[in-house]
Amino acid sequence: MINDSDLSASLEDYLEAILILEKRNRVARVKEIAEALNVQMPSVSGALKVLRSRGLVHYEKNSYIRLTEEGMKVAKSIQDRHFALAGFLRKVLNLSADSAQDIACKIEHVITPELASRFRSLTQYIEDEVIANQMSRDSWEMLITGHQKNDSDN
Amino acid sequence: MINDSDLSASLEDYLEAILILEKRNRVARVKEIAEALNVQMPSVSGALKVLRSRGLVHYEKNSYIRLTEEGMKVAKSIQDRHFALAGFLRKVLNLSADSAQDIACKIEHVITPELASRFRSLTQYIEDEVIANQMSRDSWEMLITGHQKNDSDN
Repeated sequence: MINDSDLSASLEDYLEAILILEKRNRVARVKEIAEALNVQMPSVSGALKVLRSRGLVHYEKNSYIRLTEEGMKVAKSIQDRHFALAGFLRKVLNLSADSAQDIACKIEHVITPELASRFRSLTQYIEDEVIANQMSRDSWEMLITGHQKNDSDN
Repeated sequence: MINDSDLSASLEDYLEAILILEKRNRVARVKEIAEALNVQMPSVSGALKVLRSRGLVHYEKNSYIRLTEEGMKVAKSIQDRHFALAGFLRKVLNLSADSAQDIACKIEHVITPELASRFRSLTQYIEDEVIANQMSRDSWEMLITGHQKNDSDN
């Protein structure tokens, strides 16, 4: 069983990119992965060999790439952490969708699934209890950013 | 004017370590920095040369190291982000002090001072409004972790 923490941040990015491409096109290609991660094709080939040696992807030279069952499990766990963080950054800390995506991509590699779930509980509490019942979204934005609306993103 | 974002995460760690050592001993030494960051002494010398070339530290071979005024400003900004994150992770997400320090060290490099300040506002709101007025700390821990107390850290 591969533990997420055995993978470098960059290998995690590869698995996540393959998951997204598989969802979109059923399979992933080296060229598409290179474009998605903004890296050179030889770097992709190198990473795929490591991922294959760990049993996380099916990959033969010049063929399509698919996640193995284990690779799918790891990729989904990373994506799950990503969603938890991006939701928190956007809904609670009032970042723009783009900034939230960007920062979530960087933080997702350093948190455990358990911590991601705490971020999710916090987001849910702020959305369902605080913003719905105790103050308007504008007031929440002002409380968090210290600014009036329209000046709310960094 | 050096912008924080011009520095790699590892150079930021050096400045932070020098700040802590200066506070403790008035000056920092290569050996102490190497111990604090768990790196070899030649790596420290290399990093100090880069920091010196950017006007962030005073450093001559075999002498003490001190932050310049600009270096102090950058180091304090990093430390400020670190405190904001560690406080949030401990008080709001209920991590142990050690886990909070550890994760804050990794995240502090990817967030802006503005985002750190939003984390601080959120922590203050949860501490002052939610935990003080609306529920006990135990109830908050249970809400965030989904566990009873004593099973609250990851």
